[in-house]
Amino acid sequence: MGSLLVVSAHAGDFVWRAAGAIALATGRGERAKVLCLSFGERGESAKAWREGKTLSEIKAIRRAEAENAAAVLGAEIEFLDAGDYPLRESEELIDRIVHVYREVDPAVVLTHPPVDPYNGDHPAAARMALQARVLAQAVGYDAPGEPLGAPPVFFFEPHQPEQCDFKPNVLLDITSSFETKRKAMECLSAQQHMWDYYTGLAKRRGVQVMRNAGPNLGLPHTTMGEAYMRLYPQVTEVLA
Amino acid sequence: MGSLLVVSAHAGDFVWRAAGAIALATGRGERAKVLCLSFGERGESAKAWREGKTLSEIKAIRRAEAENAAAVLGAEIEFLDAGDYPLRESEELIDRIVHVYREVDPAVVLTHPPVDPYNGDHPAAARMALQARVLAQAVGYDAPGEPLGAPPVFFFEPHQPEQCDFKPNVLLDITSSFETKRKAMECLSAQQHMWDYYTGLAKRRGVQVMRNAGPNLGLPHTTMGEAYMRLYPQVTEVLA
Amino acid sequence: MGSLLVVSAHAGDFVWRAAGAIALATGRGERAKVLCLSFGERGESAKAWREGKTLSEIKAIRRAEAENAAAVLGAEIEFLDAGDYPLRESEELIDRIVHVYREVDPAVVLTHPPVDPYNGDHPAAARMALQARVLAQAVGYDAPGEPLGAPPVFFFEPHQPEQCDFKPNVLLDITSSFETKRKAMECLSAQQHMWDYYTGLAKRRGVQVMRNAGPNLGLPHTTMGEAYMRLYPQVTEVLA
Amino acid sequence: MGSLLVVSAHAGDFVWRAAGAIALATGRGERAKVLCLSFGERGESAKAWREGKTLSEIKAIRRAEAENAAAVLGAEIEFLDAGDYPLRESEELIDRIVHVYREVDPAVVLTHPPVDPYNGDHPAAARMALQARVLAQAVGYDAPGEPLGAPPVFFFEPHQPEQCDFKPNVLLDITSSFETKRKAMECLSAQQHMWDYYTGLAKRRGVQVMRNAGPNLGLPHTTMGEAYMRLYPQVTEVLA
Amino acid sequence: MGSLLVVSAHAGDFVWRAAGAIALATGRGERAKVLCLSFGERGESAKAWREGKTLSEIKAIRRAEAENAAAVLGAEIEFLDAGDYPLRESEELIDRIVHVYREVDPAVVLTHPPVDPYNGDHPAAARMALQARVLAQAVGYDAPGEPLGAPPVFFFEPHQPEQCDFKPNVLLDITSSFETKRKAMECLSAQQHMWDYYTGLAKRRGVQVMRNAGPNLGLPHTTMGEAYMRLYPQVTEVLA
Amino acid sequence: MGSLLVVSAHAGDFVWRAAGAIALATGRGERAKVLCLSFGERGESAKAWREGKTLSEIKAIRRAEAENAAAVLGAEIEFLDAGDYPLRESEELIDRIVHVYREVDPAVVLTHPPVDPYNGDHPAAARMALQARVLAQAVGYDAPGEPLGAPPVFFFEPHQPEQCDFKPNVLLDITSSFETKRKAMECLSAQQHMWDYYTGLAKRRGVQVMRNAGPNLGLPHTTMGEAYMRLYPQVTEVLA
Repeated sequence: MGSLLVVSAHAGDFVWRAAGAIALATGRGERAKVLCLSFGERGESAKAWREGKTLSEIKAIRRAEAENAAAVLGAEIEFLDAGDYPLRESEELIDRIVHVYREVDPAVVLTHPPVDPYNGDHPAAARMALQARVLAQAVGYDAPGEPLGAPPVFFFEPHQPEQCDFKPNVLLDITSSFETKRKAMECLSAQQHMWDYYTGLAKRRGVQVMRNAGPNLGLPHTTMGEAYMRLYPQVTEVLA
Repeated sequence: MGSLLVVSAHAGDFVWRAAGAIALATGRGERAKVLCLSFGERGESAKAWREGKTLSEIKAIRRAEAENAAAVLGAEIEFLDAGDYPLRESEELIDRIVHVYREVDPAVVLTHPPVDPYNGDHPAAARMALQARVLAQAVGYDAPGEPLGAPPVFFFEPHQPEQCDFKPNVLLDITSSFETKRKAMECLSAQQHMWDYYTGLAKRRGVQVMRNAGPNLGLPHTTMGEAYMRLYPQVTEVLA
Repeated sequence: MGSLLVVSAHAGDFVWRAAGAIALATGRGERAKVLCLSFGERGESAKAWREGKTLSEIKAIRRAEAENAAAVLGAEIEFLDAGDYPLRESEELIDRIVHVYREVDPAVVLTHPPVDPYNGDHPAAARMALQARVLAQAVGYDAPGEPLGAPPVFFFEPHQPEQCDFKPNVLLDITSSFETKRKAMECLSAQQHMWDYYTGLAKRRGVQVMRNAGPNLGLPHTTMGEAYMRLYPQVTEVLA
Repeated sequence: MGSLLVVSAHAGDFVWRAAGAIALATGRGERAKVLCLSFGERGESAKAWREGKTLSEIKAIRRAEAENAAAVLGAEIEFLDAGDYPLRESEELIDRIVHVYREVDPAVVLTHPPVDPYNGDHPAAARMALQARVLAQAVGYDAPGEPLGAPPVFFFEPHQPEQCDFKPNVLLDITSSFETKRKAMECLSAQQHMWDYYTGLAKRRGVQVMRNAGPNLGLPHTTMGEAYMRLYPQVTEVLA
Repeated sequence: MGSLLVVSAHAGDFVWRAAGAIALATGRGERAKVLCLSFGERGESAKAWREGKTLSEIKAIRRAEAENAAAVLGAEIEFLDAGDYPLRESEELIDRIVHVYREVDPAVVLTHPPVDPYNGDHPAAARMALQARVLAQAVGYDAPGEPLGAPPVFFFEPHQPEQCDFKPNVLLDITSSFETKRKAMECLSAQQHMWDYYTGLAKRRGVQVMRNAGPNLGLPHTTMGEAYMRLYPQVTEVLA
Repeated sequence: MGSLLVVSAHAGDFVWRAAGAIALATGRGERAKVLCLSFGERGESAKAWREGKTLSEIKAIRRAEAENAAAVLGAEIEFLDAGDYPLRESEELIDRIVHVYREVDPAVVLTHPPVDPYNGDHPAAARMALQARVLAQAVGYDAPGEPLGAPPVFFFEPHQPEQCDFKPNVLLDITSSFETKRKAMECLSAQQHMWDYYTGLAKRRGVQVMRNAGPNLGLPHTTMGEAYMRLYPQVTEVLA
């Protein structure tokens, strides 16, 4: 019963892209932790800026929304408040992420894919999440806790997948957790048009779950899915 | 408890490349069937030709070796005797493979990767195995049996993997079945230098099993592996 | 005012994948011609087979549906009845397609992308459409009419785009023709679940139209889109 | 009638690689602005160094040449004097580029492709140009002016295109502006051997313009071209 | 002192694309043999067709031109007259090529790259050349002569290299043989505009020879080059 | 008789991955210099950390081992002690590497490939080695010595080649220097299990040397090899 760690550039990403996986994990009684490197206060809060909100007000709004969504999913959440647009890569920030790895000792890691021509913060978050994972594995790296094992890394789906070289090689059946995902999405009240957009995407990936699983499995037409891309080879004792 | 179908261009391929997976499957009590499209009588029997053997003698030798290896692995074996060097792609041959799919109803399919600049028969076998799988899915295709589901396809490892664009995304732990694989290899008596070569490869892939699984799993230093490349996305209910 | 030629493996493909582009062209007063290489009678008519229909009945049903859809779109349609599952590549069939190129003299060509691990007929149609286009360009090729120019080729969107290496580089705004596309889809009465599926896809591609065009253009939130992949470089006098 | 922004690592790049596009734009009455991040004073001024010129002399020479070339093209030019070999990526420099984006509000952006194993400054300029474009789009980014729309980005041609993964997908017909381009090239008096080299390249790309446009267009044998690579999908209402 | 075998789809290809390499080889006293699968009578003889020549007249013209060019280069030439547009792939044709391999026993093989969206005959020739090479290696393949070794294969440069995924990894210095290449080109009298085009290309590749060799080698500014793409890994005892 | 420069992230890399090439070079009487950017004190010394050694003790051990191995190979060695896990990229470090290039004036450069999802230090070393090489070529770059030529760069083999996009295009026959490589490996006493692992790899690459060289060369069954990936095109006067 391992833990799940989700490293997210902004406060909303983990909801749209990975809430189904998170709810599945917590539903199985596993620990799930979301690490938000920033609140997305500059790059993903256009509406609030247009309404004349201040920077600290916007951060507070985004924090509250993300905390509510995490609570719905049964997940812990931590914010590093490292700033966005741009999210600055630094040794200090990577070191803080190493400490989180050592504390959580995740069995599985989720993060952004490393290519996104529409948003530089997403690849920056991915690069730091990946580098911190490798550093946390070294016994010689100076941070509390045991050296990390080799948890598999899954990239979650970006907004325009083909332009991000995102070719899913894992389709996750989230039918049983989709209702919870929808409730978590509804915590992000400023982005109401996204609720239906990502419900539509879940249906679309659900159709692919059915097609790739095959008709013999008898999956219902209401199957919902999330798409992932595995970075490292799968290790297994059974081909399936 | 599904069946395993292995589509192999020549009589020896399934042993060097997939015997570990086959023995794991039969060890779990599953049915495994090997379909050899040819005996490899022209392209992979240089020694026998140099010794002056006739074509039919060479076919008989290769058939016997392969049958012995299959028996060691607990697998069925069938030969289509379609000729090698070149293995000719034809509608008739594909149709015969469709019939095998419909009869075996495999849960998992193994075959060659579709690129190999050193051996044109391997990609030809892969293309036919893949096309037959899709045809067997169609209720309108005229062959006995039920339409096939959507069994996942795994490409096994070619001789020079990098030149064949073979980037493994599945590492199979075959430690428990390696002894059986070795015995199956030893049935191919004309290629004795390959026994050690593929034992060395299994060790190498075993080291990668350990590295990618992580030290926390406590895998022994004697871990042996086989590498595979998944064609379709994995469908799952658990990210792991 | 050039013509549009759409080369489709089966009778329904042009509707789901390109009806928006076709209706835009005919709406501008251009000629559009759909060439269906087969009816999709074996591979895409599962329901009819399960209902016990005969082969010729199924062909007639599919023909009628496609003719109705083409009529809604204002397009001509021709069926080559070359058989599906598998669609056989042959010199004779390619020659027939060359004749169509010479007769239509298209300014733009639409067809399937050349990779599809889920359906071998689609790449086969694409290969023949592309080869026929090159042959039709040769003055020395024996067919009536003038040698073809160099009409650009656009691949339309397959069902599982990422698995087909489909990376859209053209996003077509079909907002003004979507209502017509929907009516054409509704002519395909046996596949009712697809109507909503491809309406959802058009919304999704519409969001990408808006994102890539930029907010300054003031596109409405009801923008609908189709995605295409250009095979040859765009030739232009203006970068835009 | 939008503006054109060209982001160039060194003082000469915009002339060899994009002068045809610039002259076409200004010829249509559009504003064009060239932003040179450095003068190329260390990496691309070998001859001047060998003649014993000082750093400030070399900068002055390169500035004058580039200003003359820009004047010939009818374009504005600005130098950020950020140093070359290496061109250092920094938040401050990116911020200055954001300010230029907000001021110019370009309808089209030209810059280097992001891969160049022969010159690290070119990818560095590209990365900064691309990141600044995304930052300039955010209403929350603190810089004067309106948030940027989504201007398309075109990579211009590097010196050894194939080694830079440069696969042109746009061929620009610069026949009508080539004479102006040639005059702009002749402003770069230290690199006389390049005048003919890039005239030869324009002929070569012109042949490709003709081939891809097709003989029906009746383009003259004197067609000249420039090659570009589009980063984002083209948005359009007409496939052509 | 090994032999050189050039497998060419049409009668002119070996001149534009590989004459420099051929003349270097014969200049060193090596045997060079050109195998033309067709004359290019339909696809590459537009002018002759427009002048009303018959098929057999066109073949005769192209044969004579190619024989003259080969003579200038000091190479043997053989025509298989297999027809073009399309060049049909067949087992019989491959078998004839196998016989040529066995007879010539080449130390080096040159042919077209396997991708060309502008001309289907080129990839067809490449596929047959490559398959025949592998078949000729098998002692069990029924053809006179000794089994072939493993001669390296180099793809020569297509007309639009980037669109053919042609990324040169070998730059051949043909300065010393260029004058001979020019004379061979001038044997192809119907295509006079190509003489300068391919002279321009040789200069261009020559500049790359200089750049990649480095200034220390003191190559003259008149260096001429041809670009190639190696299919198999280079085997060597010295890294250089 | 040029020099060989090997740029290595950690103290052991040059032994496992390139000792055969180094020994071949020194055996020919050429100068070889190894530049270790760090000792690998944190990331590759797990055993020493577990034994309670201090940081400076570990550095001293790794230094001594690497010096011994270099001595066995007849190579010079220099340590920059820049720290590992992470190896920090900085302008200062790159400048130090430029000075080494200018001093050694290498004819050939070896370093890590630029992709390695298992170890961020390797790509960091590669990026710095490549950038320094380009900077050292500029006459305007302020460092002693003559501007560098254009020495070819070869990437040596990473631990999990396929996951690092390592596709060898050069296979080096190290049969004659393998015994020396083995002795150098045995200087790295803490990693005894690696001795056999890399002996096994040398055999494996040796088999590929034989296969790609062809049977006609009569290479012995004891051929040993190292695999490399060339960054820039090979420049040559002979195709072979």
